[in-house]
Amino acid sequence: MDWSPTSLPIAVDAMGGDHGPGEVVAGAVLAAREHGLPIVLVGAPGPVSAELARHGASSEIPIVRAEEALEMDEGALASLRRPRSSIAVACHLVRRGDAGAVVSAGSTGGVVATGRLRLRGQPGVLRPAIAVVLPTRPRGTVLVDAGANADVKPEMLVQFAHLGAAYADVALGVRRPRVGLLTIGSEPGKGNKLIRRAHELLSAANVDFAGNVEGTDVMAGSVDVIVTDGFTGNIVLKTLEGGVRYAFGELRDTLSEGRLSRLGAALQRRRLRELTRRLDPEEHGGAALLGLNGTVVIAHGSSSAAGIAAACRLAGRLVEKRIVERIGERVSADARSHRRWS
Amino acid sequence: MDWSPTSLPIAVDAMGGDHGPGEVVAGAVLAAREHGLPIVLVGAPGPVSAELARHGASSEIPIVRAEEALEMDEGALASLRRPRSSIAVACHLVRRGDAGAVVSAGSTGGVVATGRLRLRGQPGVLRPAIAVVLPTRPRGTVLVDAGANADVKPEMLVQFAHLGAAYADVALGVRRPRVGLLTIGSEPGKGNKLIRRAHELLSAANVDFAGNVEGTDVMAGSVDVIVTDGFTGNIVLKTLEGGVRYAFGELRDTLSEGRLSRLGAALQRRRLRELTRRLDPEEHGGAALLGLNGTVVIAHGSSSAAGIAAACRLAGRLVEKRIVERIGERVSADARSHRRWS
Repeated sequence: MDWSPTSLPIAVDAMGGDHGPGEVVAGAVLAAREHGLPIVLVGAPGPVSAELARHGASSEIPIVRAEEALEMDEGALASLRRPRSSIAVACHLVRRGDAGAVVSAGSTGGVVATGRLRLRGQPGVLRPAIAVVLPTRPRGTVLVDAGANADVKPEMLVQFAHLGAAYADVALGVRRPRVGLLTIGSEPGKGNKLIRRAHELLSAANVDFAGNVEGTDVMAGSVDVIVTDGFTGNIVLKTLEGGVRYAFGELRDTLSEGRLSRLGAALQRRRLRELTRRLDPEEHGGAALLGLNGTVVIAHGSSSAAGIAAACRLAGRLVEKRIVERIGERVSADARSHRRWS
Repeated sequence: MDWSPTSLPIAVDAMGGDHGPGEVVAGAVLAAREHGLPIVLVGAPGPVSAELARHGASSEIPIVRAEEALEMDEGALASLRRPRSSIAVACHLVRRGDAGAVVSAGSTGGVVATGRLRLRGQPGVLRPAIAVVLPTRPRGTVLVDAGANADVKPEMLVQFAHLGAAYADVALGVRRPRVGLLTIGSEPGKGNKLIRRAHELLSAANVDFAGNVEGTDVMAGSVDVIVTDGFTGNIVLKTLEGGVRYAFGELRDTLSEGRLSRLGAALQRRRLRELTRRLDPEEHGGAALLGLNGTVVIAHGSSSAAGIAAACRLAGRLVEKRIVERIGERVSADARSHRRWS
């Protein structure tokens, strides 16, 4: 192949997601046509080529064959049982240097396990972690880990700070991201044992550590990166999702009480819908699985074509800005500075 | 004293809260006059009696002297340093049988530490925990622990289920509350080590265990009680608070774009304000500290007079429905059934 490194294609897992290949292929076509991204689709050639033909895109996007697929309800173990799954083959393309990144709308557990198995952690990184961008003002906030590691050690939280800082730099353009540690109470001694130790380590680490942040700060935009374990991070993310859905449901009821209010509600229904979508953190490009020898973006399982295209755009940006190298630099710089002082 | 047990007064900590005694005394007067609750105010006689006089209530509500007060920013250790603080004296009244319950708008850490020290845990209860009622539909959901215990063991989570079930029974009138365990992923094996073990124990415990729930379920009203550790619970609660504030802020911006929308927004501003208030979980009576030899209700530090009155009403209800005995019955029944089977 004679692609230059920056034009390595994005390997899109055509079999992941709740809607089957239809929506994923449509998203891949959108990414190729609207955003000019080089794409390969990985999956069962029959259905995938049929979908491509529907868009008249058969000659535009190559297909790489994968015999199997991980089901959405299959857990992490399935990645061992299915070495030829579409997500495994997509990872293999990156490993071999034939693709620059993987995009999948498969189950998070399956993508994380397959990514760890096929791409391996990058040197010096203890554990890969999931980063998502929360739509705070004036700019987004990176939450890491959003669900890859349910049990962590304090040293891993320090590394999540590096992963998140590299991601904030690359994805949000923040040169010196401020990092907060999610806990209960803002003073240094507050939290559980894990957090108290992580606070000490972060204070000595090579990051712009802003100290503790609380749940009320998650959507406040007061820091650029919020560090937490994958258990808490996933619960926070899903609590926000459910909380916003609840608040808007209540609001709809409130707005439709009374005649004048009904008028107002009708005027605003469309705006309300747009806002709901914008608040869904999984709508803007998906979650990045960071710390592996390759770039993996996990799109929401129920992603529309536009969601898949956004995930491809995010993956393209992460490759272009060399996220893997940037993480490597931060992690090894921190390790060096620790050696120097200890 | 010749009060009957049900008419034991509620000892209100006049010195707790962000607004000083003014708002607390106003709330106590409201509780006494509007809801007919017997109240004693605990605090510095000078300021408290001045506030009572402002309401013309000097002869209606007795004052019990307390020389000191815990500051809002003082942590748990202050409860040891200040044995004569208003919250400590209020607890002492309950201990001595001169009051039925304590209401305080002091710092959560200070109230929890003082309560543990002065009232002690009730027999068989490993750790007291904080329960709050989330305003879900069709009826509220109890979240426990909302912040008393940052580091827990699986056995404590089982007890939190009993505390929460007793509370749902007493506060929400749910005879057989369904209990969910907060984690990531709905299948039994999902979560961290703590949760996996707690899941096993809860499956064997004497509660109506509905299995795992996720962050998206917190505001869905699908279970009556959500069990979690105090670290996660507090972060969930504060994330919801911040998330709802954020969503409404975005909404305000959205609603005020465009001329027709501005009209609609004007119509709805008041309703929106009401809704925001209703969604604040700390506005309806506050948090209950369960598992002590006495009833303690923690009102929000920034409580208005109405918030303090609501906390007094909740405290009165918990005493009337004998929450302490109900918790004792559940915890000992579970201990007995375990002895029988093991």
